[in-house]
Amino acid sequence: MALEVLDLVGIFVFGITGALVGVRKKLDVFGIQVLAMVTGLGGGFIRDVLIGALPPAALVDWRYLVVPVVAGLLTFFLHPGIERLERLVNIFDAAGLALFCVTGARKALDFGLPPLSAALVGTISGIGGGVIRDVLSGRVPVVLRSEIYATPAFLGAGIVVVADEAHLDAPWVALAAAVVCFVIRLLAIRRGWNAPLPRMP
Amino acid sequence: MALEVLDLVGIFVFGITGALVGVRKKLDVFGIQVLAMVTGLGGGFIRDVLIGALPPAALVDWRYLVVPVVAGLLTFFLHPGIERLERLVNIFDAAGLALFCVTGARKALDFGLPPLSAALVGTISGIGGGVIRDVLSGRVPVVLRSEIYATPAFLGAGIVVVADEAHLDAPWVALAAAVVCFVIRLLAIRRGWNAPLPRMP
Amino acid sequence: MALEVLDLVGIFVFGITGALVGVRKKLDVFGIQVLAMVTGLGGGFIRDVLIGALPPAALVDWRYLVVPVVAGLLTFFLHPGIERLERLVNIFDAAGLALFCVTGARKALDFGLPPLSAALVGTISGIGGGVIRDVLSGRVPVVLRSEIYATPAFLGAGIVVVADEAHLDAPWVALAAAVVCFVIRLLAIRRGWNAPLPRMP
Repeated sequence: MALEVLDLVGIFVFGITGALVGVRKKLDVFGIQVLAMVTGLGGGFIRDVLIGALPPAALVDWRYLVVPVVAGLLTFFLHPGIERLERLVNIFDAAGLALFCVTGARKALDFGLPPLSAALVGTISGIGGGVIRDVLSGRVPVVLRSEIYATPAFLGAGIVVVADEAHLDAPWVALAAAVVCFVIRLLAIRRGWNAPLPRMP
Repeated sequence: MALEVLDLVGIFVFGITGALVGVRKKLDVFGIQVLAMVTGLGGGFIRDVLIGALPPAALVDWRYLVVPVVAGLLTFFLHPGIERLERLVNIFDAAGLALFCVTGARKALDFGLPPLSAALVGTISGIGGGVIRDVLSGRVPVVLRSEIYATPAFLGAGIVVVADEAHLDAPWVALAAAVVCFVIRLLAIRRGWNAPLPRMP
Repeated sequence: MALEVLDLVGIFVFGITGALVGVRKKLDVFGIQVLAMVTGLGGGFIRDVLIGALPPAALVDWRYLVVPVVAGLLTFFLHPGIERLERLVNIFDAAGLALFCVTGARKALDFGLPPLSAALVGTISGIGGGVIRDVLSGRVPVVLRSEIYATPAFLGAGIVVVADEAHLDAPWVALAAAVVCFVIRLLAIRRGWNAPLPRMP
């Protein structure tokens, strides 16, 4: 139940990022709608395929399909000026990352995956939608650009997994894990945190 | 049975588009063959993975593998001059889109998916092969370029779904749905139909 | 057992190629780690999804996750000067291709797929990791560049399949098939073998 709500909110915010990137690329209303859907649903599709939960949740529950459409249409009509688009993409993307890494890890645990795998599935579902969005629209995937991205997702997923090992699975654990991921990701953007680069001999 | 035939024809025409893009990119015979196979089989793979029909049809029936190879070889030897390539890609791509959106929706219904999901699965299998072809060969995916593309696929898939709700599933329904998708797609290309762009404040 | 060892070695060498491409693209330590993981695990994920072996092997056995991390960290700290990177990518990539086409075909046979399909699954798992690596890092996928790539993978997978038909499945068959693929791929690079290009009328 709580899982579903977080999942739907994650789809909504990721859908917004897809639509915003579409606006930025000057796509038409249908291209924007497609980007909103693949970005919103992509991570969950990958997650459900990997854990064998087929057909994916988004294909057996119509709310999963309506949410990214609404996100895309709202963005199409209400998007801000071009100069603020990229900043908004980053903020909503951080929110989607935080929500999906948590719901992904939780669902993987529910399907009986071992702890480390559940943390990885959480990370993959967090970064999946953004990777698909960026590859389709010809951007370098954000996860590969020089910023802290996969790491906070792994951290958020890890908190869910460790809490589960300790038999803590109250809703506030999921929320706390999402907040940790979200805050670290935003701080990394704002402060320009960088991870070490390879030395060049 | 009728479904299989439509599926194989769809694989054939999508295989041709993959090979034509490969010719245009001046790939060698093997690169062209690979593009023909991923374009022909990609949409069906995604469809079968999403509805949980594993292994995918193309992996349990050898005809599914022979068809794109033949499409690729025919195209390699018989392709036209470079200046007519893009137009042919568009026509065959429209045919593949039309066939796959119909067979995808039909198969999803047969696997018990609800109507809206079946329409989405049909749309995804229609656009999937072209997306993979374009991403691999470094083109902006046709589905995102400013044209009517995902919409006729959704329409074709939708006709199949609505007809099914009305207990109409004669072969001519599938054919009619494919024709609707194909004609709208071609008209959109010929007449240069465009969907609304986001306003820029 | 032998299959698992070959699989883990394949993940290791593909992980190295992902990390080397990341070093070349001047990604930071986390971006490099992500590329190492998707390159090492991508082909096996695709294979297991296609044959319906869900969740994929890499998600139920923690060694599959540790191996690409180690490959990525080793490469991050010990990589050579920039001028030798591309050559190393090619060699390790050939090794990964050889190992995965063999283990992919073998696993597909074990899951009851028919011979031709098993050879195709082997080829796909051989080329899958490299395709994901190249698409994510904005390179033209090696499989589409003008070189012998998918063909030796199909040959290696084919040897495994034919030997299985002849009831030969000793470990040396798998090794011989991998060596054939590896040697042909390396010769094609060294000697600059090219496949025929389409004639331009």
